[in-house]
Amino acid sequence: MDFTLLESLLESKDFFKLKRELSEMQLADIAEFLDQLDGKTVLLVFRLLPKEKAADVFSYLSNDQQKQICVLVNDQELAQLVDELDFDDKIDLIEEMPANAVKKILKNATETERKLINQFLNYPERSAGSLMTIEFVDIKKEMTVKEALHRIRSLGFNKDTIYTCYVITATRVLEGIVELKDLVLAPGDQKIQDLMETGVVFVGTHDDQEDVADVFKKYDLLSVPVVDNEQRLVGIITIDDIVDVMEQEATEDFHRMAAIEPSDEVYLDTSIFILARRRIIWLLVLMVSATFTGMILSKYEAALESVVALTFFIPMLMDTGGNAGSQASTLVIRSLTLGEIEYKDFWKVLCKEVGVSMIVGFILAALNFIRIRFVQGYSLGISLTVTVTLFFTVLLAKVVGGLLPIVAKKLKFDPAIMASPLITTIVDTFSLLIYFGVASWILGI
Amino acid sequence: MDFTLLESLLESKDFFKLKRELSEMQLADIAEFLDQLDGKTVLLVFRLLPKEKAADVFSYLSNDQQKQICVLVNDQELAQLVDELDFDDKIDLIEEMPANAVKKILKNATETERKLINQFLNYPERSAGSLMTIEFVDIKKEMTVKEALHRIRSLGFNKDTIYTCYVITATRVLEGIVELKDLVLAPGDQKIQDLMETGVVFVGTHDDQEDVADVFKKYDLLSVPVVDNEQRLVGIITIDDIVDVMEQEATEDFHRMAAIEPSDEVYLDTSIFILARRRIIWLLVLMVSATFTGMILSKYEAALESVVALTFFIPMLMDTGGNAGSQASTLVIRSLTLGEIEYKDFWKVLCKEVGVSMIVGFILAALNFIRIRFVQGYSLGISLTVTVTLFFTVLLAKVVGGLLPIVAKKLKFDPAIMASPLITTIVDTFSLLIYFGVASWILGI
Repeated sequence: MDFTLLESLLESKDFFKLKRELSEMQLADIAEFLDQLDGKTVLLVFRLLPKEKAADVFSYLSNDQQKQICVLVNDQELAQLVDELDFDDKIDLIEEMPANAVKKILKNATETERKLINQFLNYPERSAGSLMTIEFVDIKKEMTVKEALHRIRSLGFNKDTIYTCYVITATRVLEGIVELKDLVLAPGDQKIQDLMETGVVFVGTHDDQEDVADVFKKYDLLSVPVVDNEQRLVGIITIDDIVDVMEQEATEDFHRMAAIEPSDEVYLDTSIFILARRRIIWLLVLMVSATFTGMILSKYEAALESVVALTFFIPMLMDTGGNAGSQASTLVIRSLTLGEIEYKDFWKVLCKEVGVSMIVGFILAALNFIRIRFVQGYSLGISLTVTVTLFFTVLLAKVVGGLLPIVAKKLKFDPAIMASPLITTIVDTFSLLIYFGVASWILGI
Repeated sequence: MDFTLLESLLESKDFFKLKRELSEMQLADIAEFLDQLDGKTVLLVFRLLPKEKAADVFSYLSNDQQKQICVLVNDQELAQLVDELDFDDKIDLIEEMPANAVKKILKNATETERKLINQFLNYPERSAGSLMTIEFVDIKKEMTVKEALHRIRSLGFNKDTIYTCYVITATRVLEGIVELKDLVLAPGDQKIQDLMETGVVFVGTHDDQEDVADVFKKYDLLSVPVVDNEQRLVGIITIDDIVDVMEQEATEDFHRMAAIEPSDEVYLDTSIFILARRRIIWLLVLMVSATFTGMILSKYEAALESVVALTFFIPMLMDTGGNAGSQASTLVIRSLTLGEIEYKDFWKVLCKEVGVSMIVGFILAALNFIRIRFVQGYSLGISLTVTVTLFFTVLLAKVVGGLLPIVAKKLKFDPAIMASPLITTIVDTFSLLIYFGVASWILGI
């Protein structure tokens, strides 16, 4: 977005015009503008927004800017702001706030609401319970379409969460759903029980958000009901929250696959100490494992002394092995995430990877032989040693890279840890063993 | 899903009971069951489904199973099936079909529909035009709420695409939107122009699907209107298609970051020749670049001959450098994708990465010094050489890994290619140069 006009209005203190400009903008755009302002200015602009709009814009702001505004506004403003927030946004805010701000917020809540807030704060992080909202339309199957529409109007929340109405029993057990579109298309005196869809897809309060996202993707849902242990309807989750979950889970996989401890924090907002802490553990683990390669090399010291040229090809062999392995592991890890591969496909993956590495390994080895023997002019012995090693390194790398993620998943580990860094370290060690094995066989050292 | 019951009914040829079981299942679950059946069986079960349901289930099937069914059914069945499909599913199917099947499909289409299909087939792959559907509700601002609801009922499609109604002029230019919930909550005689929201977010037919997904995420949309060059409304895109796009784009990034040519195909359904082709190009490029390391090593042949022990640490230095670099590049690439970092943050990223590598590099180097000098008992000279090299390799790796993706984005390349494999190759080369520079300075060789 281009905020030049808004910035110049702000600079010339033309608040009347600024207010008018803001009133014609999308909520997300206003939030984007506010997000880049500093403390005092943000409060000034935020106060120009009409009250109902302010709360909506607030929910689009970054966590840091939300916290800043909560600290800067006075108690009465804070109470008003929190009051206007949707229930799930309220919970998100409370989770992020420092304790004294939370106290201020809870002070203004009613007894019932305080109880509800505490219940929500107790759901495990990343569970369906922590994602859900309580603003949904519940109806009874004995109602007519007209009565159901009347109930929707009387509940009064004008949000996407009314597109599906949930049919519950007297004890709040979920019986079925009716889409708003079906209500609109049906005659007013039709009974809900004749219109409702049963056998509804639902999730439990303690289900992991990743599983909830999978349910949305599989059934193409806009929202899903959340039930407790007794099958009572306690909330719903809408697709906009799932879009965020999908992004968060993908980021987590990217980080884990690059040997970083995952976190939700924005890179530029994270201190270098926290960034360092998230990276050092795996670097240490991998560095220690990499010392195996040093041990192997020192064992073959005599061979290396007699044929120094063997050293020259070590980096190329290690890099190519690492790359070949990370290709296989990335493909398999992603397929596992998308549910395209399961443990039962172990042998199929093995066959694929053996087949692929035959082709890829042969091409790479052949081109290498030509280069080493005829372009660089090394002896036939050395050329053959490098070529044969390269072929078997690629084969090993692809098989290890393809299978370890499947094994990890079977053992209930996150397959994403079996990505490039770990595969590279494993493959490096074995490729050196192959290298010196082949060298002693071909070169007799 | 557990399909044991269905499979046993199929085996015992109890089609009556099978049909009843299927009638109570979710569409996506039926599709999952069909997807794992072979040619003849799938047709048999597919024919048990009621006609309207068959088309819905069909749209959930995998591409391969869709093609198989199209080939197996007779012409009349195919015509009926295609006729029942939603317009966007029809287009997807035609894009995937072999030419003779497409002919069969188009034969049964009306003149207008054939024209429309051809128009849709001409939108570039991965553009908004290729994602959109034509099944949306268009209304005029002069209408009352009652008239608008009447129009929704008369259009007769009962889909999620009716949750937003699009207000257009006589020349089909988009003027605003009205949500179905607002229509339901408003009095029947209110004018649409008093209810509609203007300044609507829209996309163009030729916009890239990734940009469309970003619009959905930013504005929390359920659907977005698609307009042509003259601002005329030609279609809408719904969130369920965007969920698929997000997944597809993430997969593409995962693949590109592991040096694989991206593709949508399912791993297990891809032939080993295609898998090999998608991997060989980058492996070749990276192998050739890795030969630089060989050239550097051969240049320092004399040094390696006099101090063979230097060789032992090469794999550990290379691996640690590669891992440190891929951590930085992955964090930055993902942040670029999520729009958290832009080119203007170049210096901020530089500072972060220098800071992080100071901490991480110091810890790794110090632990390494202790191990090499006191545990393994190498000389002070060698221990210092390895330690100093390790520190500077980590520094270099993190800076190169952090900045190259930003530079790539600025130069309009996909930052994802600046991931581990390429960074590793670059860092390897420079770390060897550092190694021998430090060695000749400390060891005097």
